[in-house]
Amino acid sequence: MTPEAMLWLALDLIGTFVFALNGALTAVRAARLDIVGVVTLGMMTALGGGVIRDVIIGDIPPATFRDWRYFALAVAGGLLAFALSKLLHRLEAAITVFDAVGLSVFAVIGTSKAAAFGLGVAPTLLLGVVTAVGGGTIRDVLIGQIPTVLRSELYAIPALAAAAITIGAIRLDCYGLAAALGAAAVCFIIRMLGVRFGLNAPGPLGAGR
Amino acid sequence: MTPEAMLWLALDLIGTFVFALNGALTAVRAARLDIVGVVTLGMMTALGGGVIRDVIIGDIPPATFRDWRYFALAVAGGLLAFALSKLLHRLEAAITVFDAVGLSVFAVIGTSKAAAFGLGVAPTLLLGVVTAVGGGTIRDVLIGQIPTVLRSELYAIPALAAAAITIGAIRLDCYGLAAALGAAAVCFIIRMLGVRFGLNAPGPLGAGR
Amino acid sequence: MTPEAMLWLALDLIGTFVFALNGALTAVRAARLDIVGVVTLGMMTALGGGVIRDVIIGDIPPATFRDWRYFALAVAGGLLAFALSKLLHRLEAAITVFDAVGLSVFAVIGTSKAAAFGLGVAPTLLLGVVTAVGGGTIRDVLIGQIPTVLRSELYAIPALAAAAITIGAIRLDCYGLAAALGAAAVCFIIRMLGVRFGLNAPGPLGAGR
Repeated sequence: MTPEAMLWLALDLIGTFVFALNGALTAVRAARLDIVGVVTLGMMTALGGGVIRDVIIGDIPPATFRDWRYFALAVAGGLLAFALSKLLHRLEAAITVFDAVGLSVFAVIGTSKAAAFGLGVAPTLLLGVVTAVGGGTIRDVLIGQIPTVLRSELYAIPALAAAAITIGAIRLDCYGLAAALGAAAVCFIIRMLGVRFGLNAPGPLGAGR
Repeated sequence: MTPEAMLWLALDLIGTFVFALNGALTAVRAARLDIVGVVTLGMMTALGGGVIRDVIIGDIPPATFRDWRYFALAVAGGLLAFALSKLLHRLEAAITVFDAVGLSVFAVIGTSKAAAFGLGVAPTLLLGVVTAVGGGTIRDVLIGQIPTVLRSELYAIPALAAAAITIGAIRLDCYGLAAALGAAAVCFIIRMLGVRFGLNAPGPLGAGR
Repeated sequence: MTPEAMLWLALDLIGTFVFALNGALTAVRAARLDIVGVVTLGMMTALGGGVIRDVIIGDIPPATFRDWRYFALAVAGGLLAFALSKLLHRLEAAITVFDAVGLSVFAVIGTSKAAAFGLGVAPTLLLGVVTAVGGGTIRDVLIGQIPTVLRSELYAIPALAAAAITIGAIRLDCYGLAAALGAAAVCFIIRMLGVRFGLNAPGPLGAGR
């Protein structure tokens, strides 16, 4: 396994795990599902973005379905979140942070994988964003909410920023662990600033106004 | 055509037909759609799980799009359900039974097809469950309901049980019609017991409590 | 590039552009999203049908992800619609017309692409309709509405008519620009007549009655 492949794998597994935590906590908070529903929503959130990415890119069957570690981490994240949800007082904050981490990591890895498969610049950016927002969009649709990517100004934008930095680094031939983490950090910081300072678009349901 | 291929085909067509009946009756009851909507929702419910399975597994174009019998059975099921809906007094019961049959059959066939394509144990189980719950999840999302797989404890679990029995039989080299029907029967019985005795997780909408 | 390939491309790009306009205007009207949400919903509406078509047909990565023009037109359509939405008094009418044009064009091109990939008659018709209604269905699901294809009698039916004319012309070996535009025109006219004269099925939400 090349170092680059290991980097991809590690980032992908991290993204999978945090999205599983996020999806499962969302299931507890927003829809008050029981344990099977919680773990199921965690898995769909965790594996959704990667499956969409791999299906679109033609890397079939998706990595998720060839490597048991994705499966194990998604289930473990869901179970851990179910257990933690009884302890966490600030569920909302944890949900937001895990979502931002998953968004950041998946934007970078989706972009680098699309570039490795030889897609052009615009499609690569698009696939990076789709990978990043895919799992969360599936999560929101399944629990009957307007997806975050549509409601929040600073959700697609930070993912796009991370994708742009990633593809820039690849083109400049300086893509590696530092560039990947830097791109993910930029996405994470923009997203969290947006959440912290309420830089969101008006919610269509009018709930948060 | 080998006997095993015929078994797959027959089970797949049965699952397609009952899910078409189920989706169409759901369209009549839950969303009171007219005939085109009824047949369309029946088709999406019937063909959704198999299309997801084949896209993920890389069996492209999906069986549904190569073999006119899936198409014909899905349309026929939708039309039959539309006609029957005026006669059936116990629509709810019919919807539940058809859904349980489709769930059971698709769990078995999704699992055996994933195994035949060389996926590992965990991914095979996952694909079995995804095939089983996929059509119903599409159905629920389209009519604006939280999917059954998230709301009901005993929906993913029986599908997982059938998938586990199926893969066990395959590994022990005793997979055949008996094993397939046995696995499907276990799923069906667990699911119906769950429905009968109300072994469901709390509904997130609080409607059924 | 053969003339037939150019015809496909031109129709596909037109369909992409009008669906982007439609999705973005829908985002403005139905969900009052801000600019990022508007452009995002426009892109998903515009690219959704084609991505589903290409994934099912096995033309991977989808045309959308190989050719930057789809991407550019989808973004341009979204931005244009956002700007226009402040000027247009009759947003509703524009949404309906753009949707009908996208439906018509995608039904024809989805059908001809499926036929070119060697699918049979019934699967070709099905894929034509799926391509036509796919983007709009994704749009409706994302903003939490029952999809038009389920609510309106004359949505799947005109798409099916265009698909049938297209495949008929292909089989009779007289498929070309005239046949393609004719098939699209039939779909457009049926759809607009349905809208004009209220030939819709009862809405499940009872809103429009």
